[in-house]
Amino acid sequence: MMAGSEWIVDAHGCRAEALRSIAALEALFDRIIDDLRLRPVSAPIWHQFPGEGGVTGVVLLSESHLSVHTFPESGFAAINLYCCGPRRAWAWEIGLADLLGAQEVRVRVHQRGRAVLSDSSRAIERPH
Amino acid sequence: MMAGSEWIVDAHGCRAEALRSIAALEALFDRIIDDLRLRPVSAPIWHQFPGEGGVTGVVLLSESHLSVHTFPESGFAAINLYCCGPRRAWAWEIGLADLLGAQEVRVRVHQRGRAVLSDSSRAIERPH
Repeated sequence: MMAGSEWIVDAHGCRAEALRSIAALEALFDRIIDDLRLRPVSAPIWHQFPGEGGVTGVVLLSESHLSVHTFPESGFAAINLYCCGPRRAWAWEIGLADLLGAQEVRVRVHQRGRAVLSDSSRAIERPH
Repeated sequence: MMAGSEWIVDAHGCRAEALRSIAALEALFDRIIDDLRLRPVSAPIWHQFPGEGGVTGVVLLSESHLSVHTFPESGFAAINLYCCGPRRAWAWEIGLADLLGAQEVRVRVHQRGRAVLSDSSRAIERPH
């Protein structure tokens, strides 16, 4: 069975102050949620690491979840969006440049739930 | 810069009742957290979908996050563990067979944060 798509997004060269700002990251979540018409099932939860540290946040969606982890000291943000149904891609490069100042964005997309027995999957032998 | 590893785990053939049980999934989170000595920074949040639907849950970690999304109607669970520092692999096949009855487990691991300009990454041209 198919269980949707996951976007794994690495954003480099972001502004450190945006990566320390829950408000800036909440604006990012809001933009993605609005643009893709996602449906949150909870308020986002946030954790601010102490000192010059970054922020971790996640929101549960009817479609699965959206998360961000930031590393202000290296201008890096790791974002995941998992949608269990079909959903068009977001314009990650444009949105992340606009909202976080990202200068390089790498997007990888995974299909989840395909029961393919290939080299990278392993069937489990279970005792009877 | 390197920003850790993400395990993307697709578990097939799981027991439907385990995939509808927040208690069973919380036991899974607890086992992973204990075995890998992860440090939650919040209580897990859970959402139970109505009727015969599945469960979505996430816990924020000092190391990033652990999430699960279940699809009881097809015996499928999608699990993500993102650790921003080095961490040994969990025995996904054994643990998921034990706790959820998984019969086939596919594990993919991504390194996050590598600034590699390859075909799958795109530099953004920004106006000056």
